Amino acid sequence: MTIEEARAALGACRLEIDDVDRRLVALLNERTRVVERVGDIKQQVALPVYDPKREEQVFQNIAAANQGPLPDAAIKRVFERIIDEMRTLERTRMEGK
Amino acid sequence: MTIEEARAALGACRLEIDDVDRRLVALLNERTRVVERVGDIKQQVALPVYDPKREEQVFQNIAAANQGPLPDAAIKRVFERIIDEMRTLERTRMEGK
Repeated sequence: MTIEEARAALGACRLEIDDVDRRLVALLNERTRVVERVGDIKQQVALPVYDPKREEQVFQNIAAANQGPLPDAAIKRVFERIIDEMRTLERTRMEGK
Repeated sequence: MTIEEARAALGACRLEIDDVDRRLVALLNERTRVVERVGDIKQQVALPVYDPKREEQVFQNIAAANQGPLPDAAIKRVFERIIDEMRTLERTRMEGK
């Protein structure tokens, strides 16, 4: 492979990554909207926001869905970040109500 | 809303979240496979793996795609984790070659 061929191939990969990333952003926002609905429902009936059993279910679901190449532990760390960001947003939103 | 109605609504939300999460896992693995291809190409022509300018492009792309409700800063932190996990995996894979 020449350096020119490599640069062309890398350019194509980057377009692919950008496309995947836009779809990831859309899904993260879709997830956030459902989390906001969960928050609203819980608030109406005064259920606690934090539910460690449910969090365990989320981790089981993603591990079961994972076919690699990302290892389960890496996926779990990404989801810990996702859950943490949505919890922070939810807390801010609830305080503003 | 009664507590029974709330529980039913929460159950429906959770099914939706589980579905979104499975799609997120699939996309994260799709992204990882492209990152692996990038690594292979770079290795063949001895280009450096880490490219801070490209990382900046990734952040610009996701900020431009973001329509909320997640704030840009939250999305960026999630992607910092994603990029970090993929870089770690890539380093391990390259060492095994």
